[in-house]
Amino acid sequence: MDPIKIIEVKESVFADNNADADKLRAEMKAQKTFLLNLMSSPGSGKTTLLKQVLGRLKDEMRIGVMEADIDSDVDAAAILETGVRAIQLHTGGMCHLDADMTRQGVRELGTEDLDLAILENVGNLVCPAEFDTGSVKNAVILSVPEGHDKPLKYPLMFEVADVLMINKVDVLPYFDFDMDKVVEYAHMRHPGLPIFPICAKTGEGVDAFCDWLRAEVKAWNE
Amino acid sequence: MDPIKIIEVKESVFADNNADADKLRAEMKAQKTFLLNLMSSPGSGKTTLLKQVLGRLKDEMRIGVMEADIDSDVDAAAILETGVRAIQLHTGGMCHLDADMTRQGVRELGTEDLDLAILENVGNLVCPAEFDTGSVKNAVILSVPEGHDKPLKYPLMFEVADVLMINKVDVLPYFDFDMDKVVEYAHMRHPGLPIFPICAKTGEGVDAFCDWLRAEVKAWNE
Repeated sequence: MDPIKIIEVKESVFADNNADADKLRAEMKAQKTFLLNLMSSPGSGKTTLLKQVLGRLKDEMRIGVMEADIDSDVDAAAILETGVRAIQLHTGGMCHLDADMTRQGVRELGTEDLDLAILENVGNLVCPAEFDTGSVKNAVILSVPEGHDKPLKYPLMFEVADVLMINKVDVLPYFDFDMDKVVEYAHMRHPGLPIFPICAKTGEGVDAFCDWLRAEVKAWNE
Repeated sequence: MDPIKIIEVKESVFADNNADADKLRAEMKAQKTFLLNLMSSPGSGKTTLLKQVLGRLKDEMRIGVMEADIDSDVDAAAILETGVRAIQLHTGGMCHLDADMTRQGVRELGTEDLDLAILENVGNLVCPAEFDTGSVKNAVILSVPEGHDKPLKYPLMFEVADVLMINKVDVLPYFDFDMDKVVEYAHMRHPGLPIFPICAKTGEGVDAFCDWLRAEVKAWNE
């Protein structure tokens, strides 16, 4: 395996992140690349989900992945094993990515020939929700062990989500997690939010999310 | 039950948080109150652990709890059920507490008559590690479902930790979690860090943490 490409992304100099995010979205639209921003708490299963998604979609569309972390390259290494192009972004301690930091990643990854670029954001249920990365859609994972009350405590993350996955449903019997309540609370924050119960480890439910993603990519790239 | 006291803490005006944190520590030292700052990802079990700790210690020392969250008052409500004084701090979207925000909480809680004041920080493995709250010690929880690689990805949190609890050991059989590796990685960040495997739900291992805390409070308040 080639050495993992690690990019130290620099703090943005742009005062207006929303305008910069719109600009990045327009650039990606022009080159027909769909950018997905994947967010969750630490350890909710972002990388494990991505491996399942790549296994299902990599032969029907061209995909690249940017793995963001404070430190380490374990996630990029895991994605490269799937044969998909991937780079590791280091945020230098920062808790989120904004549009310009995402653009730095996009340039290093090289996205002109991609149908789908995926940004795995820093594991954090607070800050990443505050910064538009320039993505077309925001996907959020909440895992069963974290508890069904999280949409009450971290409102913005669930407001900005375009799709929500409830991961680790295989361990539902061992946790006091109420699926009806999490749906109720998530819809309190974002009425009509699509919610997919999944198990990223076994692949259960991942097909349904891939159907959602496939339709979104197709609509964007047409 | 009385209505839950909710404090909207305001962003700090102090440029030098470290100096302000030292000042708060000195104030707490003068009044013989030990301040513990409890940090973790969302859903790692901070409130559940606190309920176990309060059950064990509330009859031998005077304790008060500040529950910080972006929104909701579910945690303060849970603590009040134990009969211990508690207030809810709302951070107005902010991802952490600094020393001045902690001081606002301390004043509203009223700590002059307390041996131990506990701050449950915002669920976040990144930002809270960057701000000295004025606490005497930082306690960190990592739960089994989050994975043993977290000290690699979130280095600062494990560097600033004075004690680490590995929570939810009851579900170890259902997760690929390597206890030896998490100890190795955590000690890479902070050599000699005390580590207690616990199950906050059942109380397993909590006595050992309480012994650690009791000794720390005693040493500080003497």
